[in-house]
Amino acid sequence: GHMVIVGWNERSREIISKLNDSGSPIEIVLIDETLEENPTESRCVHFIQGKPHVDATILKGNVQKAELVLITSDHSHEELLADMNSILTLLTIKGLCPEVKCIVEILTPEQVVNAKRAGADQVLQSNKLTSIFMLSSIHSRGTGLLWNIMGRLQENRLTSEPAASHFEGRTFAEAKAAWADKEKLLIGIKRGKELEVNPPLSFKIEAGDEFIAIK
Amino acid sequence: GHMVIVGWNERSREIISKLNDSGSPIEIVLIDETLEENPTESRCVHFIQGKPHVDATILKGNVQKAELVLITSDHSHEELLADMNSILTLLTIKGLCPEVKCIVEILTPEQVVNAKRAGADQVLQSNKLTSIFMLSSIHSRGTGLLWNIMGRLQENRLTSEPAASHFEGRTFAEAKAAWADKEKLLIGIKRGKELEVNPPLSFKIEAGDEFIAIK
Ligand SMILES: [Ca+2]
Ligand SMILES: [Ca+2]
Repeated sequence: GHMVIVGWNERSREIISKLNDSGSPIEIVLIDETLEENPTESRCVHFIQGKPHVDATILKGNVQKAELVLITSDHSHEELLADMNSILTLLTIKGLCPEVKCIVEILTPEQVVNAKRAGADQVLQSNKLTSIFMLSSIHSRGTGLLWNIMGRLQENRLTSEPAASHFEGRTFAEAKAAWADKEKLLIGIKRGKELEVNPPLSFKIEAGDEFIAIK
Repeated sequence: GHMVIVGWNERSREIISKLNDSGSPIEIVLIDETLEENPTESRCVHFIQGKPHVDATILKGNVQKAELVLITSDHSHEELLADMNSILTLLTIKGLCPEVKCIVEILTPEQVVNAKRAGADQVLQSNKLTSIFMLSSIHSRGTGLLWNIMGRLQENRLTSEPAASHFEGRTFAEAKAAWADKEKLLIGIKRGKELEVNPPLSFKIEAGDEFIAIK
């Protein structure tokens, strides 16, 4: 399956470049309204000019066969207007092919709920993300610890795996001790949709829990 | 000392709200060119209307006495133009008060080096940050593991502390084992400016190293 990226900007440029550089480049359909032609020289990128919230554009992009859709926000618009555009695009895609997974960038906190109503599989709040990092920089007086850690996590990659059954009923402290000699670093537990990063030492591991680790 | 925030947008709104809600709210000077009046109702926020890359505005904001300056990017401009504005503001501030710490948001990767030349103490590449999270979401097929971890880290807070002297010459594996029964979770080692998140088990701890942990 191919991947569909809506919107050309610094973020999609970086993502396409990283996906192309990876060992197994994937086919990408890039949809943008304002560009005249393919902005990349990659043969893996197929460009479609058109309004993404119009059925014809989505059908041209063969979106119903896509593995994943990423809808990026057009920052050159007023923030609310940008979100309205993204949500309209999401509605168009989910209307035509409800089963295709969609990740959507949203700028204003108020429109997150509408993006979910429109069927977003994941909402990425880029402004909130940036605020978190800015606050962290403010608190650490410009040392940028969180930023550095992110840079490393990107390479290190996060993993999740089912907790081995012999850990059921044991504590997070026991799991940490047991993992101390592994190359992977245990950082938390995922239970259903809930994620606990560094839970209390006495946190009891249950069947179905997942271990979250840094490779 | 007060804090200066340049630019009113979703990011500065969120930051000001978080700083106000914290136990010890700090005095904030908000500088924005387009607003007519103080967009917040907080008594801790002093609003100055004016072009931030003009000496008079900076002097009015008493920036030379500030503890920290955060220059946010105006996303409503073309990305390069937004970066030019931010760098010009940075040059103005560093020209008038070179000792004040400045964190600056930069949108295009090409202008990071110029922001550093202009004296930025930290450059925050918000587009790159968002791309990292988008890529992580793509790789995890929309599960948003990295995003969830970030949300938790924000509450949990990262800490750094000097490695205790009895760890000198010991390995990261030994440190992990020794920390297994602590409430804090050891995730890496900082040596000078270099940060290693989950270094190899055999990584040797040296005098002056810092332990990076999650509270
Ligand atoms: Ca743009
Ligand atoms: Ca704006």
